[in-house]
Amino acid sequence: MRIGILGGGQLAKMMALAGQPLGHEFVFIDPAADACARSLGAHRVSDWSGPDLVNQLAGCDRVTFDFENVPAESLATLADRFDVRPSPKALEVSQDRLAEKQLCASLDIPVAPFKAVDTRPELMGAIDALGLPALLKTRRLGYDGKGQYRLAHSEDLEPAWQSLGEQALILEGWVDFAHECALTAVRDAAGEVRFYPLTHTLHQEGILRFALSGSPANAPWQDSAEKIVHQIMDALDYVGCLTVEFFVTEAGLVVNELAPRVHNSAHWTIEGSVCSQFENHIRALTDMPLGAAHSRGSALMVNFIGQMPSTDMLALDGLHWHDYGKQARKGRKVGHATWVLEDFATLKRRADELTAHLEPSQVQGLTGLINAAG
Amino acid sequence: MRIGILGGGQLAKMMALAGQPLGHEFVFIDPAADACARSLGAHRVSDWSGPDLVNQLAGCDRVTFDFENVPAESLATLADRFDVRPSPKALEVSQDRLAEKQLCASLDIPVAPFKAVDTRPELMGAIDALGLPALLKTRRLGYDGKGQYRLAHSEDLEPAWQSLGEQALILEGWVDFAHECALTAVRDAAGEVRFYPLTHTLHQEGILRFALSGSPANAPWQDSAEKIVHQIMDALDYVGCLTVEFFVTEAGLVVNELAPRVHNSAHWTIEGSVCSQFENHIRALTDMPLGAAHSRGSALMVNFIGQMPSTDMLALDGLHWHDYGKQARKGRKVGHATWVLEDFATLKRRADELTAHLEPSQVQGLTGLINAAG
Repeated sequence: MRIGILGGGQLAKMMALAGQPLGHEFVFIDPAADACARSLGAHRVSDWSGPDLVNQLAGCDRVTFDFENVPAESLATLADRFDVRPSPKALEVSQDRLAEKQLCASLDIPVAPFKAVDTRPELMGAIDALGLPALLKTRRLGYDGKGQYRLAHSEDLEPAWQSLGEQALILEGWVDFAHECALTAVRDAAGEVRFYPLTHTLHQEGILRFALSGSPANAPWQDSAEKIVHQIMDALDYVGCLTVEFFVTEAGLVVNELAPRVHNSAHWTIEGSVCSQFENHIRALTDMPLGAAHSRGSALMVNFIGQMPSTDMLALDGLHWHDYGKQARKGRKVGHATWVLEDFATLKRRADELTAHLEPSQVQGLTGLINAAG
Repeated sequence: MRIGILGGGQLAKMMALAGQPLGHEFVFIDPAADACARSLGAHRVSDWSGPDLVNQLAGCDRVTFDFENVPAESLATLADRFDVRPSPKALEVSQDRLAEKQLCASLDIPVAPFKAVDTRPELMGAIDALGLPALLKTRRLGYDGKGQYRLAHSEDLEPAWQSLGEQALILEGWVDFAHECALTAVRDAAGEVRFYPLTHTLHQEGILRFALSGSPANAPWQDSAEKIVHQIMDALDYVGCLTVEFFVTEAGLVVNELAPRVHNSAHWTIEGSVCSQFENHIRALTDMPLGAAHSRGSALMVNFIGQMPSTDMLALDGLHWHDYGKQARKGRKVGHATWVLEDFATLKRRADELTAHLEPSQVQGLTGLINAAG
């Protein structure tokens, strides 16, 4: 099949790396001339709206996307002509933090307390209702921690409002959590679902830094996470990979965000599970049987932000390298490495071998993650 | 780095699939407009000789090849301008069955008894010396069983000579073997070597049909195979992956052939080992640290010859699909699947699940292989 992907970043690239052996071809729609997926298929230099999009995708049997800020109306238009998976509805819900939380609430799935905020009086009312600290976020177009402010004291309101006001916002009540985790699952058009093991995640400055599978701290939460993700997938008649990010709290799991696509927290599945999220996403899109999602051992993924480190790290047996082929730029995800070991205890014992290759701030983060994991 | 590959077939494709995540770019030189690697890099439609080859490869940091019938003199010329790995010398030796056997003999490595044959009297003399049955082969340009005749009786001579005469030949004495196996290893420019586990191979009509890792029948031969491959690699100052095919006889291992490149018998390493032959070949070419070659469980690779079967087979958990994107054609390798299971006993017990998807001739071959394996 020919698969059109809106977006030509690293997620599109890894979809194509997984999809080419399945016999598929790829077309990437991306306005950046140096979109990093371009070496794996046809690259159309174009944005994701406008009447020409249909022509750009001519001949595609399926259309999907590699990030969720594709205009939902573009996708809805495309859905008249192409088999778009996941559906525009799933994208629309996840593009709007309010709709996302309302969906969860309607399914009795725990989320942070929330209030829609369009005006300054609404903000004051929301703070009265939810208390401080709280998070003021744009309803749309946020990613990697962009478009959000933490309000700890009343004096934080004014700068946040100055920066974020004049657009649809949401205030989220503070959630005290022990750690964060994410569940990735894949659902095919017939409704069959496969769940990956929970990923223990660590963010710094709003950007995912580390992801760990096989974390003992997550084991008790696998079943309830699967139940929640299954509910959401069925409610959206979802096809493809979906990742749900959770807070682990004393009261149980609280849904933080949905990502209706392949997701950074599950990059470790490329080598750490039988069939990766990328391959399973493509299998689901193209009506191939789903692959096994169970994992081998414990996998630790390190994101490379800004620039790639030295390849000396490759000397670690079981370490896998993913250089996205992107220009170095501050704050940009340019690659990752995944280190797969037989179990978490081995990973914990041998963590020093990896940290020898990392920056001090990374070492601190990783040490915290491993200690929290078990 | 930019890596130029002479040849743009499935081996080049799988090298690029492994090499792109390492941050490398690829240029494929192949006269076929539909060379299947073309979706993974720049494709120059050209043969492998002529003065323009240097221009076609302009900007490449390394040059390698995906099949051994590249003219050795072309490669030698390229070696003046590019860092060619493995070296033209390694290619030259493996292109000539006589030179290959002479190299082994000089290292005291067992090979089938052999005689060079250029004339009809030499053929008669060689038969007198080696007896019948014997194999009459072209010294050069044979692959997948092409360019060879089995001589069982004196009446087989004339048709074989009519077909093969007028070129440099070799007569090989018959080797009685229990089964065939192959060892793939990778060596870097500093002389470090990693060995994959022995692969149990099954050929039909001269074409590899099945390859199995974790075969109990091979376990006793791992050490002696490694010793032989190490000797050959050091003698050739080899850089990259080399596969040596063996006969397992009562007297021990006998070298059948060398393949100075990534090899079909080790395709299972993509999912069945920590770091695949393709990735390790690219790592060695580009002076990255070598990856671990040990395997996970037992892996069975099935070649798809002529045309791809139904993708229903993908419903088997742990089965991985490789559609090379080639036009169907009788006798052509168009893809393969690899099924990875926890150990050989499990594979043997569950073999029926796979054979349900295979043709009767394949089932017969696979059953024979599994019974021979243990």
